[in-house]
Amino acid sequence: MAEPWKKLGIIAGGGSLPLKIAESCQQQDAPFHILALSGYADDILKSFKPSWCGIGEVGKAIRVLKDHGCDAVVLAGNVTRPNFATLRPDWRGAKLLPKILSAATQGDGAMLDVLVATFASEGFYVVGADDVATALTVPAGALGMLGPDTCDLSDMRKAAAVVAALGPFDVGQGAVVRQGFVIAIEAAEGTDLMLGRCAPLIARLQGEEGNRSERRGVLLKCPKPEQERRVDLPTIGVRTVELAAEAGLAGIAVEASGGLVLDSGAVARCADARGLFVYGYTSHDLREGA
Amino acid sequence: MAEPWKKLGIIAGGGSLPLKIAESCQQQDAPFHILALSGYADDILKSFKPSWCGIGEVGKAIRVLKDHGCDAVVLAGNVTRPNFATLRPDWRGAKLLPKILSAATQGDGAMLDVLVATFASEGFYVVGADDVATALTVPAGALGMLGPDTCDLSDMRKAAAVVAALGPFDVGQGAVVRQGFVIAIEAAEGTDLMLGRCAPLIARLQGEEGNRSERRGVLLKCPKPEQERRVDLPTIGVRTVELAAEAGLAGIAVEASGGLVLDSGAVARCADARGLFVYGYTSHDLREGA
Repeated sequence: MAEPWKKLGIIAGGGSLPLKIAESCQQQDAPFHILALSGYADDILKSFKPSWCGIGEVGKAIRVLKDHGCDAVVLAGNVTRPNFATLRPDWRGAKLLPKILSAATQGDGAMLDVLVATFASEGFYVVGADDVATALTVPAGALGMLGPDTCDLSDMRKAAAVVAALGPFDVGQGAVVRQGFVIAIEAAEGTDLMLGRCAPLIARLQGEEGNRSERRGVLLKCPKPEQERRVDLPTIGVRTVELAAEAGLAGIAVEASGGLVLDSGAVARCADARGLFVYGYTSHDLREGA
Repeated sequence: MAEPWKKLGIIAGGGSLPLKIAESCQQQDAPFHILALSGYADDILKSFKPSWCGIGEVGKAIRVLKDHGCDAVVLAGNVTRPNFATLRPDWRGAKLLPKILSAATQGDGAMLDVLVATFASEGFYVVGADDVATALTVPAGALGMLGPDTCDLSDMRKAAAVVAALGPFDVGQGAVVRQGFVIAIEAAEGTDLMLGRCAPLIARLQGEEGNRSERRGVLLKCPKPEQERRVDLPTIGVRTVELAAEAGLAGIAVEASGGLVLDSGAVARCADARGLFVYGYTSHDLREGA
């Protein structure tokens, strides 16, 4: 291990990302301890004998991780905004709450920044999921057999420009563009719901063009331009590919090294079976005429 | 009539806007003829003895309007993108089709620009709905009894900035911001669907804050920054107020003189009854500290 820390604390929200990180640590013989967030973390983590704490128990989280000898933390998995009104914070959590509430009005990113700063101030290295499980990082190029054609590249560029334009607003890690037409822009609803509303809109366009079989359009996901890159990286999995397929899209583009892919083998197989591309794009791909 | 034209041709799509324009012409004793688009225009227009034509019959439209002595046209009402594959254009329509199809990839705005240019090249004045029915234009200030408070004004400013940022992409006449948090951004789905997806997102936030009765958040609508202001102005009506109320929003802001309000009396009454504001904002309102 060339890492500058000794033991990693995995603060686990929902979904399979915390599990993937734990497995990756095991494979590398890297010491870790899981702090599972009650009500969010998956039961499957139980086999790792995690500690549990509530979402408002910031003091307990810090103490437990220190007691287990952790000197680094990774925030991983989905955490929907807690119900602030019924939250039961411990003393440390209560002290942090005004800052969190104030940041909440700016967006999820600002709220996560407060948490990152808190752990950093306690002397933890705060690392990204992509730092501790490099295998999860979206690689450059096509993940499956297919890649984007000229039209798809052009759609990718427009979608990337849309997301970049929204940078100052702490919103939007995704957009769908189809033959130059901006179909959908992601805000607070999340990628799955965005793809869901694309399906009927695109079905109509396909009907109009008289060619229902041809896939057109790209879902692009990338980190918010100003976001803290150690948390909340855009993540895709098999479900994302399935929803993109149902929407009639040609493929999914994720910023290479700027996003995570869960089960990349399964994602590639699903994309191949459905006739979509999954592509890790670089700044080179965004250049006109690239 | 101080208008520079003699007779107005109302090219009528769906919804009640064409009717409102016809009624406004009648009240002002201004001569007009309705060209109703088959499959789009409302049957209620029949009392005005309109001519009918198909969406692809551009040559017929021009001839009919000229035969009726029209020297100005207004494009009014909703027209969803036609099914280009099954469209039956006349000769003139067919000649225009490649341009329309190429513009279609840029967005609805670009497509409408082609139509505007075509009628202008035939010598018609192309006028906006707000030019011929000034009573439909959103006035500056509150339409009903309520107005925005400091927090709402701040949400308006952020929503206006979001829409402005999307200017280069021919997309988005609307956004919903709630206490600084960008809930939704409108792309191809339209305002009603956008408000529909806000409802559960905002209900959750209200639950989290433990105050379900307090309305928070603003739907802002304004013309796309670069759009041809004579067509497709953002339009609100009673239904918009109802959907905004169901989403738990505090109110609706529309650019004064930049949007249309159908049945402003009914809209104001509905807003008052539901406890929302409907506000025509000016550039002054968007200034920080205004």
